[in-house]
Amino acid sequence: MTDLHLGEHISRRFNEELEDVRSKVLHMGGIVEEQLANALKVLVNDEAELARDVMDADAIVNSLEVEIDEECTLIVARRQPAATDLRLIMTVSKTTNELERIGDEAKRVAKMSRKDMDGVLDDDVRADLTHMGDLIREMLRQVLDAFARTDVDTAVSVVKADRKVDKKYKKITKHLIKLMVNDPEAVPAVMKIMWAVRSLERLGDRCQNIAEHIIYMVLGMDVRHIKLDDVLAEIEAQVESE
Amino acid sequence: MTDLHLGEHISRRFNEELEDVRSKVLHMGGIVEEQLANALKVLVNDEAELARDVMDADAIVNSLEVEIDEECTLIVARRQPAATDLRLIMTVSKTTNELERIGDEAKRVAKMSRKDMDGVLDDDVRADLTHMGDLIREMLRQVLDAFARTDVDTAVSVVKADRKVDKKYKKITKHLIKLMVNDPEAVPAVMKIMWAVRSLERLGDRCQNIAEHIIYMVLGMDVRHIKLDDVLAEIEAQVESE
Repeated sequence: MTDLHLGEHISRRFNEELEDVRSKVLHMGGIVEEQLANALKVLVNDEAELARDVMDADAIVNSLEVEIDEECTLIVARRQPAATDLRLIMTVSKTTNELERIGDEAKRVAKMSRKDMDGVLDDDVRADLTHMGDLIREMLRQVLDAFARTDVDTAVSVVKADRKVDKKYKKITKHLIKLMVNDPEAVPAVMKIMWAVRSLERLGDRCQNIAEHIIYMVLGMDVRHIKLDDVLAEIEAQVESE
Repeated sequence: MTDLHLGEHISRRFNEELEDVRSKVLHMGGIVEEQLANALKVLVNDEAELARDVMDADAIVNSLEVEIDEECTLIVARRQPAATDLRLIMTVSKTTNELERIGDEAKRVAKMSRKDMDGVLDDDVRADLTHMGDLIREMLRQVLDAFARTDVDTAVSVVKADRKVDKKYKKITKHLIKLMVNDPEAVPAVMKIMWAVRSLERLGDRCQNIAEHIIYMVLGMDVRHIKLDDVLAEIEAQVESE
């Protein structure tokens, strides 16, 4: 059937399977990126008609998650991979899971802000929301890039970027609380923006989670529960000792 | 060395390893249960001094997650398990991950509500919070029980219970919004309760996630993205055809 040895044949097929599953994750990532971009347009530019698109994409994202997860299980059961490949497959499965939840948060943002919010948001909040949205879109783009190129440096910069998002988040929520205190009538509408902003912040956390999975996969160091500064110091020490 | 055949020996060791990892998950679950119980006392009974305990337990929960995850990877790499065992190990890893996040949400509840809230909550909200807390504690207890006994029926009743939690959640948030509209001065304090209640609701979702992982493990049916009624119908059909 082929001029390859059986071993090479199996390992080539195995690599193809891994490649296939990785490219599916990137495809899924692309859809989630669009969900996020549209959800932000609903929130910041009042383009309510896009909310439907964000919701509709959810079904595709969900079925991709199930499909990729099953493919990962099958690969492990069939190929009995060694520890390194196993770590890659675990990272794929965890990344897929985070992406699905990023899609969920994007859906929440769109759902919360699709009702006309004219007059609720002043220019300051709108500018801050635009900025926060840009930061998070960039985080998602970067973390997918880090996944595609298994690039630790990019993953680390995603972890760092989440700090900026958290700062912006605190500023915006403070401002929204002030709006509610000054104008009680606006409370129900402002609360919707509040939930949307909260979802955005969580979305940033999930990008950070993916970045941490990538760092763990490459360096074999579990960074999930270490403080950021310690992580950065340890990565620098590892890179220097190489 | 032993009078067992090599195969039996390996499979006995394998079972012991699986048992060990399962009992670690239950140990972790016990700690998280206590975190939740204490967080609820901080929120509902103003026992602010317990907030410290909830935060302190976080470090133990985090390191248990890392430990269990590594043990799972090692077992897979060493034992090359067949599909069924693999599914069990994947469920262990996912359950551990959800438990860690349940601990995180409990921490958020405690943190948000540790400041003295005297006078902010009226008796109605307090009664509703107590009820919602009871429902969620019961969900967590049940889902750990379902995990320990690989019991699909109990897992299904956890999925059902989440509906009640969501209903209670909606009632409470509506009430809190009304409080803010009527008393703008109270907005900053009520917002803290709002975040705490949101975390409780998420905590219920995570119990439901674990229940779904258990159902998937036993019945091999991915229920994550199917509507609840369809899930229940399918489970009944499966049980009848057995």
